[in-house]
Amino acid sequence: MKIWTLPEIKARFDMAKAVTMIERGFVAYSNRSVQVPSAQHLVFDSENADCCIKSASVLGADTFAIKISTGFYNNPARGLPSSNGMVALFSSKTGAPLSLLQDEGWLTATRTALAGRIVAKLMAPKIVTGIGIIGTGEQGRLQLDYLRSITSCHKVYAWSPHFENAQKFATEMAACDFEISAMRTAREVAERSNLIVTSTPARTPLLFADAIQPGTHITAVGADQAGKQELDPGIVERAGAIIVDSVTQCSEYGEISHALKAGLIRLESLVEIGTVLASGGRARDDSDATQITLADLTGVAVQDAQIALSIVGLP
Amino acid sequence: MKIWTLPEIKARFDMAKAVTMIERGFVAYSNRSVQVPSAQHLVFDSENADCCIKSASVLGADTFAIKISTGFYNNPARGLPSSNGMVALFSSKTGAPLSLLQDEGWLTATRTALAGRIVAKLMAPKIVTGIGIIGTGEQGRLQLDYLRSITSCHKVYAWSPHFENAQKFATEMAACDFEISAMRTAREVAERSNLIVTSTPARTPLLFADAIQPGTHITAVGADQAGKQELDPGIVERAGAIIVDSVTQCSEYGEISHALKAGLIRLESLVEIGTVLASGGRARDDSDATQITLADLTGVAVQDAQIALSIVGLP
Repeated sequence: MKIWTLPEIKARFDMAKAVTMIERGFVAYSNRSVQVPSAQHLVFDSENADCCIKSASVLGADTFAIKISTGFYNNPARGLPSSNGMVALFSSKTGAPLSLLQDEGWLTATRTALAGRIVAKLMAPKIVTGIGIIGTGEQGRLQLDYLRSITSCHKVYAWSPHFENAQKFATEMAACDFEISAMRTAREVAERSNLIVTSTPARTPLLFADAIQPGTHITAVGADQAGKQELDPGIVERAGAIIVDSVTQCSEYGEISHALKAGLIRLESLVEIGTVLASGGRARDDSDATQITLADLTGVAVQDAQIALSIVGLP
Repeated sequence: MKIWTLPEIKARFDMAKAVTMIERGFVAYSNRSVQVPSAQHLVFDSENADCCIKSASVLGADTFAIKISTGFYNNPARGLPSSNGMVALFSSKTGAPLSLLQDEGWLTATRTALAGRIVAKLMAPKIVTGIGIIGTGEQGRLQLDYLRSITSCHKVYAWSPHFENAQKFATEMAACDFEISAMRTAREVAERSNLIVTSTPARTPLLFADAIQPGTHITAVGADQAGKQELDPGIVERAGAIIVDSVTQCSEYGEISHALKAGLIRLESLVEIGTVLASGGRARDDSDATQITLADLTGVAVQDAQIALSIVGLP
């Protein structure tokens, strides 16, 4: 079994290759040609922490993957990163372990941000006038970073529950050629942006329908387990098109689950990213400049398998 | 993260320590002071194979465990072992990976055999006149090996679906100071034994009630997923006492699930190993020389966590 350290993983990372693999993973997932058992969750209340174990096998692939990711949210106060974990790849011919990627959570963060890039390409307005970043943690940084390759817009409005974090984000991400304004409220971000990414652990809505500009696309990344919510269900109701990484997961605990349970949207209106990718089309009606669109990402294990394979190469 | 190879794991293995840790794990499990999410299963039909992912966290413990085990049953024909896998231990204080035990399935096999020893100590008749081994694979060998330390009986009757395997077993295990007779039928084994261990992947009953001698204890290890069965439900019905590693798992897919679903036994009659261990008593009525007893083992993830900890030591 080859063991990969984080520097080795980063050195081998190729964005274009990873995007291609993840897109294939989404298509396989929506084709039902994957096995993705329900995720395992362990919770450590006293540490404000959890661990998530996801596994995936793509039909006919030579390998399958098990991903362990931990989130220990008291860590930063102790000078430790909150995320950690690893990905193991096994042979689906012999059951032998082939590769262990000690990614410390980096692959999970990266595949999530790349999914943001994939959905923005499918759904963001053709002309982005302002990028809104709600949540300025690692995921907010990565999301913005990967949006560079699909939009020429450099105007960014950022908000964090802690204003100083938004300021820090503005200073640091300016080095990546963005003009970033730290905003005092999430509403001010929405009023200035038509491509918004939310990536907070919020449990009550941060954005409301009346602040969203016509023609805006929102990618909601934060809600990945029961109880999490970043958007008022009124936004979800107003969306003219909604894509999700997994109908099963998103309808159970994703961002759109709240509107679905409240009867504001219908299950049949949800389209999976893999279905859109397989059709080769856009997920937005470009003839309607006012359409509000939404992508809900909860993270599916096949993304973990695919990004890991993009690093180690196909056997 | 420290990585342990199989030779390193074996070198540090201490049976008494492992038994103590596993017993504590059973007690914690039955106390409900563990988190044990439902196992994940991946199936590879074309390879006659599966992968099982189990995780466990004991309340208050400094570490938690994730165990990946594969069973690729076409491997032996290719000169490869059928079992493989690894156990990862993580800090429940920081979420950091601490140890990776590349056990190749050895820890799973060993903790299962040690559970067999634990239940035999709780439930086997005081005087064992013959040991019956149904299934002469790796697990049958380990089960017999660990029974040595709890009984002085050396007479063993072994059966395998393939007679030559039973003969090979008889020859090889004789080196461990047993007098072993390979039998042509499972019935002949039962007629000569009062402590029987079954560890086959059977999907139809191998043993029937009329062959079981009064006063016999049976440990059924093979049935660990839906569809597997080694005993006729009539045996389960006749048992005067039944202990199980997990009421939840055994009633769903363990050996006793068939009798339970047929209404031959009541859920309330099942007692968990951890409950018996916590009470400090025996699980058999030693005043009744005719009582038939049964232990049903499906394998709980807390055993994996505990045997791994017995190797790496407490942090």
